[in-house]
Amino acid sequence: MSLKAKALYTFQSENKEEISIQENEELVIFDENSVDGWLQGENSRGEKGLFPASYVEIIRPRSNSNLTDYSLSPAGSPGNESSYFPSAPNTPFHMRQSFEDDEDDDWDDWDDSSTVVEDEDPPRGVGANGHAHQSPYGDNPNVHYRPHKPRMERQDSVSSSRKGSMVGRNLNRFSSFVRSGVEAFVLGDVPMMAKIAESYTIEMGPWGPQWKESPQPFSCSIEDPTKQTKFKGIKTYISYRVTPSHTSRPVYRRYKHFDWLYNRLLHKFTVISVPHLPEKQATGRFEEDFIEKRKRRLILWMDHMTSHPVLSQYEGFEHFLMCADDKQWKLGKRRAEKDEMVGAHFMLTFQIPSEHQDLQDVEERVDSFKAFAKKMDDSVLQLTHVASELVRKHLGGFRKEFQRLGNAFQSISHAFTLDPPYCSDALNTAISHTGRTYENIGEMFAEQPKYDLFHMLDKLSLYQGLLSNFPDIIHLQKGAFAKVKESQRMCDEGKMEQDEADGVRKRCRTVGFALQAEMSHFHRRREVDFKEMMQAYLQQQIAFYQRVGQQLERTLHMYDNL
Amino acid sequence: MSLKAKALYTFQSENKEEISIQENEELVIFDENSVDGWLQGENSRGEKGLFPASYVEIIRPRSNSNLTDYSLSPAGSPGNESSYFPSAPNTPFHMRQSFEDDEDDDWDDWDDSSTVVEDEDPPRGVGANGHAHQSPYGDNPNVHYRPHKPRMERQDSVSSSRKGSMVGRNLNRFSSFVRSGVEAFVLGDVPMMAKIAESYTIEMGPWGPQWKESPQPFSCSIEDPTKQTKFKGIKTYISYRVTPSHTSRPVYRRYKHFDWLYNRLLHKFTVISVPHLPEKQATGRFEEDFIEKRKRRLILWMDHMTSHPVLSQYEGFEHFLMCADDKQWKLGKRRAEKDEMVGAHFMLTFQIPSEHQDLQDVEERVDSFKAFAKKMDDSVLQLTHVASELVRKHLGGFRKEFQRLGNAFQSISHAFTLDPPYCSDALNTAISHTGRTYENIGEMFAEQPKYDLFHMLDKLSLYQGLLSNFPDIIHLQKGAFAKVKESQRMCDEGKMEQDEADGVRKRCRTVGFALQAEMSHFHRRREVDFKEMMQAYLQQQIAFYQRVGQQLERTLHMYDNL
Repeated sequence: MSLKAKALYTFQSENKEEISIQENEELVIFDENSVDGWLQGENSRGEKGLFPASYVEIIRPRSNSNLTDYSLSPAGSPGNESSYFPSAPNTPFHMRQSFEDDEDDDWDDWDDSSTVVEDEDPPRGVGANGHAHQSPYGDNPNVHYRPHKPRMERQDSVSSSRKGSMVGRNLNRFSSFVRSGVEAFVLGDVPMMAKIAESYTIEMGPWGPQWKESPQPFSCSIEDPTKQTKFKGIKTYISYRVTPSHTSRPVYRRYKHFDWLYNRLLHKFTVISVPHLPEKQATGRFEEDFIEKRKRRLILWMDHMTSHPVLSQYEGFEHFLMCADDKQWKLGKRRAEKDEMVGAHFMLTFQIPSEHQDLQDVEERVDSFKAFAKKMDDSVLQLTHVASELVRKHLGGFRKEFQRLGNAFQSISHAFTLDPPYCSDALNTAISHTGRTYENIGEMFAEQPKYDLFHMLDKLSLYQGLLSNFPDIIHLQKGAFAKVKESQRMCDEGKMEQDEADGVRKRCRTVGFALQAEMSHFHRRREVDFKEMMQAYLQQQIAFYQRVGQQLERTLHMYDNL
Repeated sequence: MSLKAKALYTFQSENKEEISIQENEELVIFDENSVDGWLQGENSRGEKGLFPASYVEIIRPRSNSNLTDYSLSPAGSPGNESSYFPSAPNTPFHMRQSFEDDEDDDWDDWDDSSTVVEDEDPPRGVGANGHAHQSPYGDNPNVHYRPHKPRMERQDSVSSSRKGSMVGRNLNRFSSFVRSGVEAFVLGDVPMMAKIAESYTIEMGPWGPQWKESPQPFSCSIEDPTKQTKFKGIKTYISYRVTPSHTSRPVYRRYKHFDWLYNRLLHKFTVISVPHLPEKQATGRFEEDFIEKRKRRLILWMDHMTSHPVLSQYEGFEHFLMCADDKQWKLGKRRAEKDEMVGAHFMLTFQIPSEHQDLQDVEERVDSFKAFAKKMDDSVLQLTHVASELVRKHLGGFRKEFQRLGNAFQSISHAFTLDPPYCSDALNTAISHTGRTYENIGEMFAEQPKYDLFHMLDKLSLYQGLLSNFPDIIHLQKGAFAKVKESQRMCDEGKMEQDEADGVRKRCRTVGFALQAEMSHFHRRREVDFKEMMQAYLQQQIAFYQRVGQQLERTLHMYDNL
């Protein structure tokens, strides 16, 4: 019996150990235990290799047992395809484990279980729905009430295959965990530097860790996209006036400057969801609609940059916002590109609170966020589709229907003029005017998306970008936690000094705090943003229906004195 | 070169001399001169025979001459397929004829020309658009300004084929002209009766002849369709409470009673456009929607019956409205069925004004009405299609779009509940409520046709029926006028006494007055009806958009104190 999994997200392989997977694709899993956040398996095209565990959910067939199948598999050794599969034995003993156990040092199963679909409320004594499985997303709002997993009993005997190994580097040297530097950071390979100019503080807020607000919050306007030429008109580009509120001095930037900044952000900021820039476009870049759309989306992007306590304080961003001199621009650009506090080193800039956090709690908080983020991603996509389709309907169907109605009224009015002795000019004028009113209403429908749906789609697009970052960010945390688990096991086996294992755990705490601060920031922003989005939409909708009503009322009055 | 014509209306052949033609079908015409209002030709299925001239327009290729091709063909002999075709010679002489000629006795061409497309404003010196032709309907609002046709010059020489004939009965004994009795009436075959109980007066109104208002105008309500059974429940039917305003005593009628009355009306009333009953339906007769629709349409039908000065005074109608006794019902029914003043005899009941009416003027007024009626028929059909499609959209597309939007909002709200520490219940509730509001708005869209479009479609359906009667009614008038023309020619040829010809003309005047009165009545009703229809539609639309706006406003307030 092979274990199956479903891909939650599309993943593009970036080197030969990895395989690409498509959202919703069914996969065969060789070993349900992920290694460093990676699973081995086979995709539907027969390709075999690694893919991130956090991108998939394992489809676990329901047990025939009249108890839950909380059977836990031990961590298999990497690459061991014939490793232990859970055969769902009755494990009543496990069920007696207290859910309140301090499972700080019980990390065996956290990594894989996070991607496994558990029976939240398993049917007791019902064996009929054998192969039904359940998504951790969407269908069950109680996913965050998932009970703690019982302690793994047979840990030692089965994990013996790992005996003799080291807390090693991940096999996949191209995973985002490795590339981001988080692995190096957690393993203590990044030396503390003598002097760190940057520092970002994480503090405990009412709902957990959060970024400390920037001491100098500011906003920044983007206005007046203007076509510019250079090389005597050979090259054309659009320049935006960018004015930060704290200087009030405008600078002029092109999309390529934004793009440069964006790539700096990606390079530097681990664990932070960097807002995506509005998409590039090969053709039509100088068309009014496109320029307008890009401007709107750059404004939203900028709002997110300035609102982020970490991103907004980035030196390269400051340079982007303030530098008005060509020579200085190049110098600042080079400085930003030589920034050493990127990736792994960026992790050194965090000041974290001293509060103890149970790593198991953090794990669950992250899982909860993961479920939320997946569902939000789905629903943002759903709303995007609906809103895009509505735009299409406004421009097409709705407009056409009302224009057809308008035409038909005008046609009636025209017919009425054909037999002059009997025709009432006032009535014909009123009917003809009604026709024009409906043609107008058709146009109003076609215009309306500019006032409501476009704004909504802009916001949704920003959130699609932000949300798409989280699987990778969560993957980093999963990787870090796996190292804690591994080092603790090695310590237990006497293969590692407790000091070293404590160091790994401590650094992992930093990763956990940073991730939670980022989660918290995301939540606070989305609350503000979605409130604003909904209000703006409703206000525009109300204004629209009022305008339509007023048009019709004026038209109705034409019939008053006939 | 064969002459072509296009069918303006669909005509169903009713006996073997006739052929069926479809609206827009192209026909070959053997002789462009109609005989008794009938043309001979071939349809696109190769069937040869007669069809009503007033149902078609002859497609006359434009002349290459730099003058108009007002060449007029003489009346050919019936059935003479090889008769004279106009070859569009230069006829400058014709153009010099005064348009103000008294053409009272120049009837040669009126019958065919009425169905011939003339160049209203012929291109002078432009021969390029050789085969372009123009519809008398729709495109040219000046159709009623059509200049008088020049007098036929070669009448005597070419119409010699008719010499020796009598003012004969029409060849086609099944034409509506014949069947309606109008032929018999015009030819004086209907003897004046000693005592005529009924009398309908036509008076001169501001815009021409009109029916004298009924001395006792009344209205009649139709309410409370109720399912009844008889034969111990074996037969089920719907009974309507019918209450005339002048008696206030309700009677109970079934659709079959309406149908009986309707058939009496068709049998009796020549020259009057009897409103069609709402369509019969084989299945679903007891479904609520159908009963409701039939009721609405019976009410409109009844309004038209009671508003008509002639129909409303019909004895059979009175019987229908008042008789509450079974025995009396049967007696009255038999009496109505034995009514002698039907068809040809009904024409004897008219009291017409003594004013002189130029028959040529009447002819033009009828042509003008014919063009109007065709265009109104087209535009009523157009509006019917548009409104039906709108109903479909309201029930389908519109509802679906708004419900999808509502679902997407709810899905967003649901996602927001998944990460409890960070979730704002008030915002989630507001977004979820917004979702329900849009689902509601979807339902409101689906409900709305009941309040506006259905009423519009009911009215339009009534008018489709009324308008579909006019081609036949106009056909009667055309036939009558042809008899005047023929008798005058015979008189000129010494084949008929002037007295007799004068008799034909006098009786034709009656037909003309009646038709004009009916045209006038139609115009007055349509003005009232369409004003009411437009007002009702606009009022309901305004109320609808206001309700939508109010729903959205209430929803918006939920975001106020977040």
